[in-house]
Amino acid sequence: MKRIYNFSAGPAILPEAVLNEAANEMLDYQDSGMSVMEISHRSKIFKQIIEDAENDLRTLLKIPDNYKVLFLQGGATTQFSMIPMNLMKNKKADFIITGNWAVKAFKEASKYGTVNAIASSEDKMFSYIPDLNNLKISEDADYVHICENNTIYGTKFYELPDTKGKVLVSDVSSCFLSEPMDVSKYGVIFAGAQKNVGPAGTVIVIIREDLIIKDHLPYTPIMLRYDIHAEKKSMYNTPPTYGIYICGKVFKWLLNLGGLEAIQKINIEKAGLLYDYLDQSKLFFGTVEKKSRSLMNVTFKSISPEIDTKFIEEAKAKGFDNLKGYRTVGGMRASIYNAMPIQGIKALVEFMEVFEKENLK
Amino acid sequence: MKRIYNFSAGPAILPEAVLNEAANEMLDYQDSGMSVMEISHRSKIFKQIIEDAENDLRTLLKIPDNYKVLFLQGGATTQFSMIPMNLMKNKKADFIITGNWAVKAFKEASKYGTVNAIASSEDKMFSYIPDLNNLKISEDADYVHICENNTIYGTKFYELPDTKGKVLVSDVSSCFLSEPMDVSKYGVIFAGAQKNVGPAGTVIVIIREDLIIKDHLPYTPIMLRYDIHAEKKSMYNTPPTYGIYICGKVFKWLLNLGGLEAIQKINIEKAGLLYDYLDQSKLFFGTVEKKSRSLMNVTFKSISPEIDTKFIEEAKAKGFDNLKGYRTVGGMRASIYNAMPIQGIKALVEFMEVFEKENLK
Repeated sequence: MKRIYNFSAGPAILPEAVLNEAANEMLDYQDSGMSVMEISHRSKIFKQIIEDAENDLRTLLKIPDNYKVLFLQGGATTQFSMIPMNLMKNKKADFIITGNWAVKAFKEASKYGTVNAIASSEDKMFSYIPDLNNLKISEDADYVHICENNTIYGTKFYELPDTKGKVLVSDVSSCFLSEPMDVSKYGVIFAGAQKNVGPAGTVIVIIREDLIIKDHLPYTPIMLRYDIHAEKKSMYNTPPTYGIYICGKVFKWLLNLGGLEAIQKINIEKAGLLYDYLDQSKLFFGTVEKKSRSLMNVTFKSISPEIDTKFIEEAKAKGFDNLKGYRTVGGMRASIYNAMPIQGIKALVEFMEVFEKENLK
Repeated sequence: MKRIYNFSAGPAILPEAVLNEAANEMLDYQDSGMSVMEISHRSKIFKQIIEDAENDLRTLLKIPDNYKVLFLQGGATTQFSMIPMNLMKNKKADFIITGNWAVKAFKEASKYGTVNAIASSEDKMFSYIPDLNNLKISEDADYVHICENNTIYGTKFYELPDTKGKVLVSDVSSCFLSEPMDVSKYGVIFAGAQKNVGPAGTVIVIIREDLIIKDHLPYTPIMLRYDIHAEKKSMYNTPPTYGIYICGKVFKWLLNLGGLEAIQKINIEKAGLLYDYLDQSKLFFGTVEKKSRSLMNVTFKSISPEIDTKFIEEAKAKGFDNLKGYRTVGGMRASIYNAMPIQGIKALVEFMEVFEKENLK
């Protein structure tokens, strides 16, 4: 069996231990004689799977009791509609624009109310997180939306904006469970599973109970109502059962590692190895302002696009795959999510050192 | 490894050959060194998976070129909103009410326009398909909605309604790919994968191209627009990649069996074994009008609720699981989808014969 170092931005690397368990249980989950894919979502077996997943996630993130955890479908993109349709009482929301996903959320919300870009880093190709002091929060804003880690550009919020009491909504798709977070500072947290948690097709939403209301916009599709999903414990219709099962295994894997403090330490060390190398390299350089650097998505370039291309090809041949940067950005991106072992980073840096010697003349 | 006969209505039994392949490929799909769960949806490998899945589905159903195939999220329930939001130009739709799912679709559509129940079998607990002659189709109906196989009640349309030229929309979740269908008779066909095709979390939509329009209702969430998904070939955002991969394997399994004519023959034989036994039994009886009997969901009862309970328990102990009827219906339901081998039906009938002798005094 072949395994490579997979630096894909998402769907992305999963812990090998989780995949091994899933393979072993594929035809017979816990002596049920069925695959998890074949088990009714109304069965005791599946109820245990989803309850364990929720409880383990609550433990990992220390989620306060006044927050609901929902396992939904439709990706973060569906949240871009669901949030305004459910939260826009005053039909106004503020956005901090730090990349493509924030822009998409902003545009989608504009269908349902007035949206304001209160800060943006578009002037420098989203290579930094804007100054978060003295933001012009709208007085009647229903919420302030941020994208906390920007997969494409490789930036990350190291502090949260002062929303002046307004609800903070955060898209954490590409940094979810990479470090502890203080859930109580947020109104809504959401994450597509396919970056750091599980397979594509499951999105996890953590929402403060008082934001789950019945008077959503009247034309809101039933599957886009938080109140319905909360009341039915994510089982209004058949949830993505297999995805939830894999997410649950990843939560247990994280707990066994020592939780989010432990993985944060590892992630800082992993990203540090790569950034430290980039900072002293004469061939490669990081593309993002140092104080905004993501721990999950490390974006970099070499001194020429030709060398970028050569590097990506040679790296792939050596088993370091999916290092090509996003098409509008160019260069390279190493997505080093929780499941990427530190050996993968060490091996990549070693390879980059050799490549640098060969190509820097 | 233990395997049981799983009569679950959904999520439901999958072909063992498909599960074996998935288990074997879990850590390394086709020498890529990655699980399909870890592979970018933009990669060549995944594009091949989704293209093969679409092509194989087109072959199985002989889908005409002027129909799009979409692999979406949110289950059939999301289609209940998506269809009116995209198809209601005149804001009017007609429904044939044959069970819970038709009722849910009807209620959801009523948010977006005027809905008419032009026929219903509610008077007799949905135990038959209403007379389809001389339906009062609304003159300006945008479409006529049916639920072609009713999982809960065990009924099936054996002919399609004469819609008088109006677009026919059909929810085929629980009979999809159980027999050939003439796609050209429909405007929209949709099926949640978790009954006859794959894991929960993928819904397959087959839609005639002229129905894919840009002037959907203005507040339609972007993820609920057919035009967006058609234009992006189901990849506007990250699709449920692993689910699509499993569906693709099921399509290949069906092609290898000889396609939909072959599986139809098997399904008629399988259902026939069970219905024939029920028709001569003195303990059990089918609950549905004979000419409306589903080939996929066989509903039946015994002469008393106490014997029903005893039967379900003893059957489970013998490895025939999930035979309990839907909670509002009671009795039993054997869901015998494509993946249920004929041996499973034969073994069940043998067990029922023994049980009958022991319990009929």
